[in-house]
Amino acid sequence: MLPRGRPRALGAAALLLLLLLIGFFLFGGDLEYERPRGAAALDGDPPADRGGHNLSDCVPPRPRPLPPKCELLHVAIVCAGHNSSRDLNTLVKSVLFYRKNPLHFHLVTDAVARNILEMLFHTWMVPAVGVSFYDLEELKPQVSWIPNKHYSGLYGLMKLVLPGALPPDLARVIVLDTDVTFASDIAELWALFAHFSDKQVIGLVENQSDWYLGNLWRNHRPWPALGRGFNTGVILLRLDRLRQAGWGQMWKLTATRELLTLPATSLADQDIFNAVIKEHPGLVQPLPCVWNVQLSDHTLAERCYSEASDLKVIHWNSPKKLRVKNKHVEYFRNLYLTFLEYDGNLLRRELFGCPSPPPPGTEQLQRALAQLDEEDACFEFRQQQLTVHRVHISFLPHEPLPPRPHDVTLVAQLSMDRLQMLEALCRHWPGPMSLALYLTDAEAQQFLRFVEASAVLSARQDVAYHVVYRKGPLYPVNELRNVALAQALTPYVFLSDIDFLPAYSLYDYLRASIEQLKLDSERKVALVVPAFETLHYRFSFPSSKAELLALLDSGSLYTFRYHEWPRGHAPTDYARWREAQTPYRVQWAADYEPYVVVPRDCPRYDPRFVGFGWNKVAHIVELDAQEYELLVLPEAFTIHLPHAPSLDISRFRSSPAYRDCLQALKDEFHQDLSRHYGAAALKYLTALQWLPAASPLPPPHLGSHAPCRHWSSLATHPTLPAI
Amino acid sequence: MLPRGRPRALGAAALLLLLLLIGFFLFGGDLEYERPRGAAALDGDPPADRGGHNLSDCVPPRPRPLPPKCELLHVAIVCAGHNSSRDLNTLVKSVLFYRKNPLHFHLVTDAVARNILEMLFHTWMVPAVGVSFYDLEELKPQVSWIPNKHYSGLYGLMKLVLPGALPPDLARVIVLDTDVTFASDIAELWALFAHFSDKQVIGLVENQSDWYLGNLWRNHRPWPALGRGFNTGVILLRLDRLRQAGWGQMWKLTATRELLTLPATSLADQDIFNAVIKEHPGLVQPLPCVWNVQLSDHTLAERCYSEASDLKVIHWNSPKKLRVKNKHVEYFRNLYLTFLEYDGNLLRRELFGCPSPPPPGTEQLQRALAQLDEEDACFEFRQQQLTVHRVHISFLPHEPLPPRPHDVTLVAQLSMDRLQMLEALCRHWPGPMSLALYLTDAEAQQFLRFVEASAVLSARQDVAYHVVYRKGPLYPVNELRNVALAQALTPYVFLSDIDFLPAYSLYDYLRASIEQLKLDSERKVALVVPAFETLHYRFSFPSSKAELLALLDSGSLYTFRYHEWPRGHAPTDYARWREAQTPYRVQWAADYEPYVVVPRDCPRYDPRFVGFGWNKVAHIVELDAQEYELLVLPEAFTIHLPHAPSLDISRFRSSPAYRDCLQALKDEFHQDLSRHYGAAALKYLTALQWLPAASPLPPPHLGSHAPCRHWSSLATHPTLPAI
Repeated sequence: MLPRGRPRALGAAALLLLLLLIGFFLFGGDLEYERPRGAAALDGDPPADRGGHNLSDCVPPRPRPLPPKCELLHVAIVCAGHNSSRDLNTLVKSVLFYRKNPLHFHLVTDAVARNILEMLFHTWMVPAVGVSFYDLEELKPQVSWIPNKHYSGLYGLMKLVLPGALPPDLARVIVLDTDVTFASDIAELWALFAHFSDKQVIGLVENQSDWYLGNLWRNHRPWPALGRGFNTGVILLRLDRLRQAGWGQMWKLTATRELLTLPATSLADQDIFNAVIKEHPGLVQPLPCVWNVQLSDHTLAERCYSEASDLKVIHWNSPKKLRVKNKHVEYFRNLYLTFLEYDGNLLRRELFGCPSPPPPGTEQLQRALAQLDEEDACFEFRQQQLTVHRVHISFLPHEPLPPRPHDVTLVAQLSMDRLQMLEALCRHWPGPMSLALYLTDAEAQQFLRFVEASAVLSARQDVAYHVVYRKGPLYPVNELRNVALAQALTPYVFLSDIDFLPAYSLYDYLRASIEQLKLDSERKVALVVPAFETLHYRFSFPSSKAELLALLDSGSLYTFRYHEWPRGHAPTDYARWREAQTPYRVQWAADYEPYVVVPRDCPRYDPRFVGFGWNKVAHIVELDAQEYELLVLPEAFTIHLPHAPSLDISRFRSSPAYRDCLQALKDEFHQDLSRHYGAAALKYLTALQWLPAASPLPPPHLGSHAPCRHWSSLATHPTLPAI
Repeated sequence: MLPRGRPRALGAAALLLLLLLIGFFLFGGDLEYERPRGAAALDGDPPADRGGHNLSDCVPPRPRPLPPKCELLHVAIVCAGHNSSRDLNTLVKSVLFYRKNPLHFHLVTDAVARNILEMLFHTWMVPAVGVSFYDLEELKPQVSWIPNKHYSGLYGLMKLVLPGALPPDLARVIVLDTDVTFASDIAELWALFAHFSDKQVIGLVENQSDWYLGNLWRNHRPWPALGRGFNTGVILLRLDRLRQAGWGQMWKLTATRELLTLPATSLADQDIFNAVIKEHPGLVQPLPCVWNVQLSDHTLAERCYSEASDLKVIHWNSPKKLRVKNKHVEYFRNLYLTFLEYDGNLLRRELFGCPSPPPPGTEQLQRALAQLDEEDACFEFRQQQLTVHRVHISFLPHEPLPPRPHDVTLVAQLSMDRLQMLEALCRHWPGPMSLALYLTDAEAQQFLRFVEASAVLSARQDVAYHVVYRKGPLYPVNELRNVALAQALTPYVFLSDIDFLPAYSLYDYLRASIEQLKLDSERKVALVVPAFETLHYRFSFPSSKAELLALLDSGSLYTFRYHEWPRGHAPTDYARWREAQTPYRVQWAADYEPYVVVPRDCPRYDPRFVGFGWNKVAHIVELDAQEYELLVLPEAFTIHLPHAPSLDISRFRSSPAYRDCLQALKDEFHQDLSRHYGAAALKYLTALQWLPAASPLPPPHLGSHAPCRHWSSLATHPTLPAI
């Protein structure tokens, strides 16, 4: 029983108790959030006062709201060069995997990264993701005066100038290094802005090493910092307040002063951020350590988390990256590999619940896809044609030579099953190449390792590899060709296929021919490189036209597709080529598909042709329709090596439906041709009517439209494949 | 100003207000949890009383605790056959991806699924995951009396008998259909057990279709249910209470009674669960709809969630599965594909924070791996040898014929780049095959589609495909062979390679020979199938020995590896074979590696040989050491088709370090051989000393230990590959 007579005092006591209870329920759960289940500060117990600054005091006891549903979150990343662009791709995949909010990425890039990332994001078409680019070169002068020894070079320092570089009306941004991996929803990180006091402008995680404590070795003199200092791999920036506080002056003053006694920054921007914070401790809002679990050597990160669910962001801040030694590195590596190999196409998922403008082109595409008839026998073809592939150009470092007036780039495309061709191709073609590779995200990593393991491939800086990420069942051959073609940097391109090896001399010979013929890129000319084939796996590659002719005569070589598709190359007129001393002109004929050298601005390939069949033929028709002259080069040749049939050609051979669909594509191509070129295109239709429809085994004898002149009398005629 | 004089009333009012506030803070957040942000009940507004039962009343206003850290969670799944085993693999990947607790899977399986899943879990080696199996056949009689029209057949009904089938001391279990995908931590689902009242025994999500409302069409008479009824794709079972309540009798009584008027169950167990619940509404604890988002046709699921973060478990409960039409199906499909293609090896991550016994063998393996020296030139080889690969046997439906006494299974292994061989192989070998495929999880799906698209492959029920999931840089050739060999079901096996096509008659001829030679599996005999090769891509396969000899004489065929490695097959004595009418015995010689037919219990391949080289040679040494007789069959032959060099052979050819490592493996093999066979193994070492070490290009002339007798005088000698 309650004692009577003291109702007021009791009421007051009850009130107090209840207020305390409310306080507990209001903030209790969020305190737990601040220090996740089992997670402790770095030293286990509440951190002692370090440098006059008690970190445990800095976590304000405030409720944690997730950001309002559908709030746009801003992320800034500095990214330069090919390798960082690949890292950024992996980081972005991890962010997108867990995110539920619209995002805007602010990318401070050099020209290389911008080129790569603009294409990547443009073709990725992720709903509710915006991207802006900022020119790193323009910003460089603001930091280039700072002597710096860190492996990130000037790029690390660039984070200091973000408040001035980002749009003036942008108030908050999360800044990330490219070597972090998310293991949670970035909105939870954004929500920590709500913990900032009125004076705080920078949110940072404590450094998880003893670097800033000094004395790691004799004469180890780190920059000044509060205690262990802070790591700048993950930063929350109140840009509005930084600008108001004159951040641009503030950090420069501090840096200048410290550089009077210190020779250079060791850890780039991080040294300067820490020096400023040491001077103005009120600026920093310490963040829970799980938001930047640092896997440097001798890391103390282990004190930060006690179980997997604690981990929010992993930071590979050792130059050793994945090879770093750490008790749980296997766990972290698996997380990283998850996103490294994750199919980025699967992130094209809409944020339903958050209406946001669809990526450019999406609506039109959706409409077109919706109009397709799933029962249509060619549905697969139509769908593949409408598929937008993610494109990652210059996947590996690529340093082209300065452009030369007659230079020629070899253009081709391939998938994993032709990787073995690359070394041989590099030996045969010493000039620049632009190659499109059709790969899954995981295969792209295998490809990377393949190149790294090859001395021949690693040595070449003039070969550009463009990854087109796989999607759909049919090989988008012409889209791949167009990607590679668009990235060629020389005035001329040699449009080849991956299973051909050019004559060793071809690169030099082509450039000399272009010069001798006084071609310029205005002149519409296609130089034909006659194509041959060997049916033998092992053979010694002819080093001259004379040797090639001898092999032809001995039946070791054939003209290309002599047995199955002679009309594809008959118009090259091999008999004439045999005797020719100078280039000669030939006429287009139906189904002609020579390998040609053309100016870079030649017509693109028609992307409607997917899978096997007619993809090159249509391109040559287009060249002819645009009145390109066809000139056969008398000393040029290229040789096709045998390989197992591709899955697409197997389907073409075994499926009448597949061949019917190809016929439908051809018909539509001709209709478009007529629309475009009018009466002039009539000749292609007429030529077609003279020919039988595409068949896997063309008739042995062809009409005058496709003269089959083959002059190697010794050539035997092996039976067609039994398999 | 507050009016004075009424302090008590005011105090009471304040108290009330505060109590209300406390109530709000105590339960508010959790009510929000119960009905996620923006998520509504199926009808948008609080559901009306349906069948005398108000669903909204069923969500108890209690706090939601996550289960205690490290609590072991139990999951039961019924799984039968090859296809469901693949589904289960995907489901388990999604559960493991998000889980933070130790798990125990209780799998009720038929013999096929048990075989597959035992191997899968055994080789998966995921920490903190236990598995128990229960025999579906034993439990079948308990439900087989129930007439059922659902596509899941009897297997669906099996969920009814779980309380009796699972261990008597198991109190709680989550029951899942194989066609669900997790999008969240299963511990959150387990935590809902805490919401059960004392009387509740079953947690279920409301059905997201109007099926049980009836009248979907004329004479549509569903089983009785409360309102829309409940879906049984995700169930929480209080097994302890069910047993106490006499569940076994309860459901049988209800089912028997309903079957007096209804002809059969339409939705298997679900009809019976619903009928019982209709009778005893107090048994059910309705679960938030996001725990079973049902993508059936005409689903009402969309009313359940408003954004992606709401989704917890997706249920593909339409026979159309991924092809189902739904507003957000693209989103759901991406989630499903994420786990379908997810590299299961990445889930081998320890649950740090929850000490649990490591999977069997892990510790030993960890020790061995820790002892490896990363600087060792052969580190990659050592690491690959220690790698345990996840094995998914019988990946596709496989219905072997009953075993016949002289039957022979063709055994081989391959990766993606040899898929094209499968159709041809099926045409050449009409008998059973056991093939190991080295694939990533994503490639396994491509392979599945490849088989489904091929009429030739789909028609074969006697070809077993065993997927060994890729891990590590070197091809584990001998491990793959052992996997395929272990799964052969006939008394004899033909140990072949994927790039060989056997004579069309070989299968019949081998069985006839085994019978004629009166072999039995006790007799240690290896029948040699002479090997040939064509260097031409196109050639017509000889239909008889006579035709083969003619091709040899014309130089269209060679004895296998005639040009680069004649001693691998020279002991077969091709000259003698040419004339032979009856089987003849040959002697082992160094580096002999014939293709042989042996009893199924033959020695296994030595898994230390990874990558390229000596992997078959070592096996033949082992056969000889165990005194297998080598008998060459006079009418048998098999022909190697050309293919691009594998990446491994390319590395062997280009890397001296690779060849040195292979030599080290050979030396160790010989040491082990001596240890095992003592003096008898001396001959192998002696033979080795007479021979030069393995080299990519063996010398043109070999000593008497490897006589190079080649009798095709017309065969030309093309130069070695220029590429």
